[in-house]
Amino acid sequence: MTLETIGFLGLGALGAPVAANLLEAGYGLRVWNRTPGKTEALAAQGAVPAARPADACAPGGVVISLLWDDASVLEVVKSDGFLERLGDGVHISMTTMTPEGSAAVADLHAAHGSALVEAPIFGRPEAAAGKQLWIPYAGPAAATTRARPILEACGARGVFDFGEQVGAATTVKLVGNFMIIAMASAMAEGVALVRGHGQNPAPVLDMLTSTLFDAPIFHAYRRAFGGPPPQLGPIPLKDLQLFRASAEAVEAPVVLCDALVTLRGG
Amino acid sequence: MTLETIGFLGLGALGAPVAANLLEAGYGLRVWNRTPGKTEALAAQGAVPAARPADACAPGGVVISLLWDDASVLEVVKSDGFLERLGDGVHISMTTMTPEGSAAVADLHAAHGSALVEAPIFGRPEAAAGKQLWIPYAGPAAATTRARPILEACGARGVFDFGEQVGAATTVKLVGNFMIIAMASAMAEGVALVRGHGQNPAPVLDMLTSTLFDAPIFHAYRRAFGGPPPQLGPIPLKDLQLFRASAEAVEAPVVLCDALVTLRGG
Repeated sequence: MTLETIGFLGLGALGAPVAANLLEAGYGLRVWNRTPGKTEALAAQGAVPAARPADACAPGGVVISLLWDDASVLEVVKSDGFLERLGDGVHISMTTMTPEGSAAVADLHAAHGSALVEAPIFGRPEAAAGKQLWIPYAGPAAATTRARPILEACGARGVFDFGEQVGAATTVKLVGNFMIIAMASAMAEGVALVRGHGQNPAPVLDMLTSTLFDAPIFHAYRRAFGGPPPQLGPIPLKDLQLFRASAEAVEAPVVLCDALVTLRGG
Repeated sequence: MTLETIGFLGLGALGAPVAANLLEAGYGLRVWNRTPGKTEALAAQGAVPAARPADACAPGGVVISLLWDDASVLEVVKSDGFLERLGDGVHISMTTMTPEGSAAVADLHAAHGSALVEAPIFGRPEAAAGKQLWIPYAGPAAATTRARPILEACGARGVFDFGEQVGAATTVKLVGNFMIIAMASAMAEGVALVRGHGQNPAPVLDMLTSTLFDAPIFHAYRRAFGGPPPQLGPIPLKDLQLFRASAEAVEAPVVLCDALVTLRGG
């Protein structure tokens, strides 16, 4: 099956397995990463490395970005020749960002005749490799209709249409990550209480995650508590800061968010 | 089937349906409540009202308590004639309390020849009526062997043996309630962000509770967010304060707990 060739920007821990899924599904890929060395493994699988984001675009084509935050997405969209080269194409933005940042990106596209589809990804790199991602998406109907089969080929277990409003899918991802971090932090503070009383947390977590908290995300963290502490790196703090900035923009409460930021050393 | 007659202390919103389940299962009941009027409905179903906690006990028998906190359980156990009347019987304590409070109660029983079985209940009154409770328990083996069929008859969907260490089951309940409150609070703060951006939270919660957070407790709160705000009353704040007291006793962290206390107006 010959499918169109897509641009793919950002080959990090999550981007690399998502891009590999697209290749496997039959899409051609032009790949770009800030650190050039990361394109090599995908090039060996048939992807064509691009020197700049603009070079990964084709006129009227589809380009996917999976970067760090608002600033990194805006930098790519404003980069030399990017919007001009994309023409009336579609930008599928998978980065976790604020609805405010997403609106700024959408405005740039609208001014140049292209369209933004928000499609932030829920799932760790293992979930991408196992095609178990959950993807909410939002954008102009013509663009999301074109994007949807591509999202499914990215390794989705399910995709969810959040309509045309800018920020609609972005917000889902911010809230979901916020809830994940709150849950992991509550589990950690609970485990500390159990350990403080000289008890083994394993059977406690076994009971809770097989009853009230019998959900995929709790099973993942329960496994993490069974072994070495989960290595979450800087992502939770970054995502909490995005949630906080977005909540402040609309004067929504951040009491719990601030406690979680404190717990993450922010 | 004729089963033994048990004492039951505390006919609140949760106690009343649990006691009704025991009657339905064939146990006889002597019931006591701080507010006497609450015994009437159960008396109509065959329970015998008792004037004092001691009058609900039988020598060598089983007595269940489902009260408010450490102080209310200690008050009952220390009440006139209670321990003397119970003799070498078994006290099944279903109240949410601290492991420290539970140890104080266990010591009183040990000094009088009776045994404490901790068996705090997970489940709202509807879950008790529907026999969908989850019950962790701990205590001396001979006492828990006797208690277990009674716990099952209380309306349990499942019971979980946490061994003989005093505080082991109590801690499970404190951690579980802490996680439930953290999750409900995170959901509320997330919903506020979505609403702040002029979006409808219903599809956001639909996606999250059917994917990452596909667990019974999230479904319950998702329904609550669909209608009027959940009426949780004073219980979450009381339970957070128990968690906090217990964590302070062993110098465990309370960063998230303090934020949740603040959110509950404590």
